[in-house]
Amino acid sequence: MAHTILVTGGARSGKSRHAEARACAFPGERFYIATARAEDEEMHARIARHISDRGEGWTTVEEPFDLAGALDRTDGRGPRLLDCLTLWLSNLMLDGRDWEPETVTLVAALARQRSPVILVSNEVGMGIVPENALARAFRDAQGWLNQRVALMADEVEFVVSGLPMRVKSAPPA
Amino acid sequence: MAHTILVTGGARSGKSRHAEARACAFPGERFYIATARAEDEEMHARIARHISDRGEGWTTVEEPFDLAGALDRTDGRGPRLLDCLTLWLSNLMLDGRDWEPETVTLVAALARQRSPVILVSNEVGMGIVPENALARAFRDAQGWLNQRVALMADEVEFVVSGLPMRVKSAPPA
Amino acid sequence: MAHTILVTGGARSGKSRHAEARACAFPGERFYIATARAEDEEMHARIARHISDRGEGWTTVEEPFDLAGALDRTDGRGPRLLDCLTLWLSNLMLDGRDWEPETVTLVAALARQRSPVILVSNEVGMGIVPENALARAFRDAQGWLNQRVALMADEVEFVVSGLPMRVKSAPPA
Repeated sequence: MAHTILVTGGARSGKSRHAEARACAFPGERFYIATARAEDEEMHARIARHISDRGEGWTTVEEPFDLAGALDRTDGRGPRLLDCLTLWLSNLMLDGRDWEPETVTLVAALARQRSPVILVSNEVGMGIVPENALARAFRDAQGWLNQRVALMADEVEFVVSGLPMRVKSAPPA
Repeated sequence: MAHTILVTGGARSGKSRHAEARACAFPGERFYIATARAEDEEMHARIARHISDRGEGWTTVEEPFDLAGALDRTDGRGPRLLDCLTLWLSNLMLDGRDWEPETVTLVAALARQRSPVILVSNEVGMGIVPENALARAFRDAQGWLNQRVALMADEVEFVVSGLPMRVKSAPPA
Repeated sequence: MAHTILVTGGARSGKSRHAEARACAFPGERFYIATARAEDEEMHARIARHISDRGEGWTTVEEPFDLAGALDRTDGRGPRLLDCLTLWLSNLMLDGRDWEPETVTLVAALARQRSPVILVSNEVGMGIVPENALARAFRDAQGWLNQRVALMADEVEFVVSGLPMRVKSAPPA
């Protein structure tokens, strides 16, 4: 049975690094499911730094949209680090897709996995209400998405200053 | 003696739903003290969704300003869910009122309640400093308000991805 | 051997007040290392309020840039409250300095202190991605800085609504 871990936190909080450490504790081949698309200089630099930080021993799967498919294709071999739900949501919204059924599809896929999945997401709702309507819609969608994934996850960790705080515990072994 | 619970968190973090669950655990008639005013389409849709999420069994009291009065009028009958302090503060500031004495009045009213009160508020100070001076003033006022209510509350919970983290515990029974 | 405490949280979350209480629990002369510069009315009012809140019994050291020097000069006499890393980072970036080597210098200085240091910092990465490129760069830098200081600190506390949540514990005595 799969073990699902949600690692959430602010920008540059050390979420990805912590999620990688969690993934590395599981046996088997390690997959990095990347939702980022290198469309500008800044994003290109971020991706390069993430790859360099992560080191050797990962098989990278680039998938901006079909996370359920990427999970199903890599299942049964080892842990999958999915980084991150925030860029995935951004990809969906910028592409004009409806994020709600996509979220249902993702959660259903998570529920049928046999190998572990570690998902990285962002907290984006703790600032002042954005003036921009699209930003408000994104903030709402991100909040709902995090709640739905957290509800089905076995563990949820909130990362502050690089350190994990426990939000939801694994059930007793 | 009243039991006061502050439930705080980011936008779309699941604060209201969690606060409702806390309120439903107390016996008696349940009151929903709503600070929202349906002045535009977006807010109207939010209010409709909140009412639908909450379900049957609530008496709604709409009160954008006088929370102390709304609490006193409903005391002695059952739990009151006050949702939320952020919209109340926004109402006060947009109406040109001084939020500081209003906060003193609210905290004094909370201290004299006999029935439980569950208050919902937002964390708004964990983003970049807003460029807009009014937004900075709002962020400061929200921070002070949360501190004052948290100081007198019996319990404070911080909701992340729909799940509560304990900030302040109830005193031992 | 020094005891290093990082107190982080949102704007107006009560970080400074909590950090002062932590500092006051240590014996010896108390130093307040202030990174703020009173360059406009709003900042002037904030500094005045901080000084008034803090009360008597503090020696104030104003140091917008050279925190390592300020720590070394005040070492061996009592606790130092450094408030705050966010303004220090802002000072560095507005002055066109490279914050990364400055951070290395600060962390090295922290490691050699004999008297306690309590550092205040801000969480700024839990809102929507800022549209402004400088704000994004600042948010990234603040995140990295917090991670580096948290890694070497003995204790890290995250303040919500004036109340501390424990992120990293002191090692057992």
